[in-house]
Amino acid sequence: MQESAETGKAQEHVDEARLWSRHVDMARFGATSLGGVNRQALTTEEIDGRRCLIAWARELGFAVSMDEIGNLFIRKAGLDDTLPPVLTGSHIDTQPSGGRFDGIYGILAGLEAMQAIGAAGIATRRPIEVVAWMNEEGSRFSPGCMGSLAFVDPARTTELAAIKDLEGTTVADALQGLRRAFPDVPNRPLGLIPSAFIEVHIEQGPRLENARKTIGVVTGIQGTRRFVVEVLGENAHAGTTPRRRRKDALLAAVRIVGGLERLMRDPADVVRFTIGRFIVSPGAPAVVPGHVLFTIDFRHPDDAVLQERGDQIEPVCRKYAAKCHVVVKQVSRTKPVEFVGQVPEAIERATKRLGLPYMQMPSGAGHDAQNLVKVCPTGMIFVPCERGISHNEAENTKPGDLAAGARVLAESLVDLATH
Amino acid sequence: MQESAETGKAQEHVDEARLWSRHVDMARFGATSLGGVNRQALTTEEIDGRRCLIAWARELGFAVSMDEIGNLFIRKAGLDDTLPPVLTGSHIDTQPSGGRFDGIYGILAGLEAMQAIGAAGIATRRPIEVVAWMNEEGSRFSPGCMGSLAFVDPARTTELAAIKDLEGTTVADALQGLRRAFPDVPNRPLGLIPSAFIEVHIEQGPRLENARKTIGVVTGIQGTRRFVVEVLGENAHAGTTPRRRRKDALLAAVRIVGGLERLMRDPADVVRFTIGRFIVSPGAPAVVPGHVLFTIDFRHPDDAVLQERGDQIEPVCRKYAAKCHVVVKQVSRTKPVEFVGQVPEAIERATKRLGLPYMQMPSGAGHDAQNLVKVCPTGMIFVPCERGISHNEAENTKPGDLAAGARVLAESLVDLATH
Repeated sequence: MQESAETGKAQEHVDEARLWSRHVDMARFGATSLGGVNRQALTTEEIDGRRCLIAWARELGFAVSMDEIGNLFIRKAGLDDTLPPVLTGSHIDTQPSGGRFDGIYGILAGLEAMQAIGAAGIATRRPIEVVAWMNEEGSRFSPGCMGSLAFVDPARTTELAAIKDLEGTTVADALQGLRRAFPDVPNRPLGLIPSAFIEVHIEQGPRLENARKTIGVVTGIQGTRRFVVEVLGENAHAGTTPRRRRKDALLAAVRIVGGLERLMRDPADVVRFTIGRFIVSPGAPAVVPGHVLFTIDFRHPDDAVLQERGDQIEPVCRKYAAKCHVVVKQVSRTKPVEFVGQVPEAIERATKRLGLPYMQMPSGAGHDAQNLVKVCPTGMIFVPCERGISHNEAENTKPGDLAAGARVLAESLVDLATH
Repeated sequence: MQESAETGKAQEHVDEARLWSRHVDMARFGATSLGGVNRQALTTEEIDGRRCLIAWARELGFAVSMDEIGNLFIRKAGLDDTLPPVLTGSHIDTQPSGGRFDGIYGILAGLEAMQAIGAAGIATRRPIEVVAWMNEEGSRFSPGCMGSLAFVDPARTTELAAIKDLEGTTVADALQGLRRAFPDVPNRPLGLIPSAFIEVHIEQGPRLENARKTIGVVTGIQGTRRFVVEVLGENAHAGTTPRRRRKDALLAAVRIVGGLERLMRDPADVVRFTIGRFIVSPGAPAVVPGHVLFTIDFRHPDDAVLQERGDQIEPVCRKYAAKCHVVVKQVSRTKPVEFVGQVPEAIERATKRLGLPYMQMPSGAGHDAQNLVKVCPTGMIFVPCERGISHNEAENTKPGDLAAGARVLAESLVDLATH
């Protein structure tokens, strides 16, 4: 491949201070007292974040549109505006105890790259779009990566719209609130497949920092199986009920978790096994709990391991339930995916040209890119995050690393939108 | 002791249908969809229950008053109204998943007994009072038995008034709401020590039913130590954080609970050990939990066992905390108490006269009587409850057993208020 005259010009216009200051501005929406962000999908906080983003985009002269599932698009026209765009972006929503970079960085890096490409006077053949996917985190509405799922498979929209949060609000209800907030943002159809997709993200793990690399060229994403386990016992009086008459759902759940820990034991430390939600009812100090609900998040890069150990979860739960009843439901499953071909190649070329230290690496976390890879050439760019801490209000990243990722993105976008 | 001419007359006027129908009426306040009651201390539901009780009392011509901590009194005057009254009663508040009889039965039995004594034309030398103690359950404000605690030790009122519920509302705030609801109920000073106290209650355990007895003459209450344990780890991303870098507060708490279960093992099944509240934060499926708070309710009739095993709770928590930090706080402690002398003797005499099958038995549950016994002769009457189920919406008791308990109470009150 020949390098065009425009190679290297866009990245010169990436402005580290501007990119950082947009992160600071955006962190106001859902700011927590511990310096993090709680900006869950389609809440007031997330809608406020979208409003801010739309204002920036329009100031720069970019067109804005939204699809049926609430994905938001910002468009820089191409010389041939009828061609499928090169798409980049990530998500505005966060975990309840989220940080200031997870998700939003991929959007702000995309905006920065589009602005830099414009400032460099580069006109690309294809349009370039930045997308904010709806509900990537899945903490309010499960499953996550919901917006990109509907994008690549519009037939699932009706089913996804009926999903409820813990308060009983459906995705459909929440989307009506979103549309009411932006009467002047035009609708666009779902599933306009792009020519390529790049997602930029903080690593959310410690590998880049430990290896002293600035850029991770992502080779794929491990697979995930999520389960909800319910343990049903019987509420009883703490002072009077003898142990032999109790059906204590908490003690049963504790034994089950012990059994699952043994099932998931892995000396190589590749298995990711997490019980993140664990709700005990009725939750009064003097009442033996009759009900426990907990979630299991199990990830592995090897689909065979996901299959085999994942299928043992239900038998292990039954084995340790004792006198309680147990119900195990798998609520989502994604297979491991690989990023190969033109997108990771473009990313690696750009990184090399910029002289940035980099490595190839898999992603431990799930991302919308795992859905996009089913419909178009896809890749991801990682930058380091401090001590690998993410999904945590202490999440932090260096302004210089954020800018480096945006430079690699700007160059990759020019490359993919030109050739 | 000689039996008076009035012996046996009051119990004839106890009306089983009326007593049952008052239970049905009262169960509307805080009624749950599963047929139970959620009527926590000083909530709208509990205040509605008080309003209903006050209306019944006034209809019967009894005077009503309330003290500084929100204990509600219903008074039947004595021939010498300057004498300390004989007091009976229990509590209106329930657990979040409470039943229709726990607490409220002791109040409605008291009202029924006073009405029956009146209908029998019996004038007692001492006044008789029915009390509704404030916050017996301790599920909204901890510790429980709060009203009777302030009653026997008024110096603690200020400290108790500052206690907050999970929403941050103080007892003092909630008491202001109570007083606003009843502007026409006169105040009375705290700590007017009665000549005797009798509490009638459902057993909340299976012993009476198993032994086919109608009445339990209660010999004492086991002691209780309550603890709150906090486990502090670090929130982390479920997909990226290797196990060796995690500080998973849930897994640490699960190991701690396993260790505590072994500590509390008791082949004789006398130890009562319950973890009723267990709160995991942030509680998102894809976040390794950084924080767990749980309660321990530990009861035993032998104070030496309470002392020795209770003191091992903190070392066991530390032993299993691994990389997490753990904080153990004892939040309450009550020593085992015994009921001896005139009150249990009067109860046993009345039960025998009525020809009811009975047994002497300790109480597994804590009751306000454990505070009253520090300041006056005290006893308790138990009646059976179905399958021993209590602190559960399925709690149930036979109308005939409720009436039997009220008959024993009426006779005991006449006895104690006359002699």
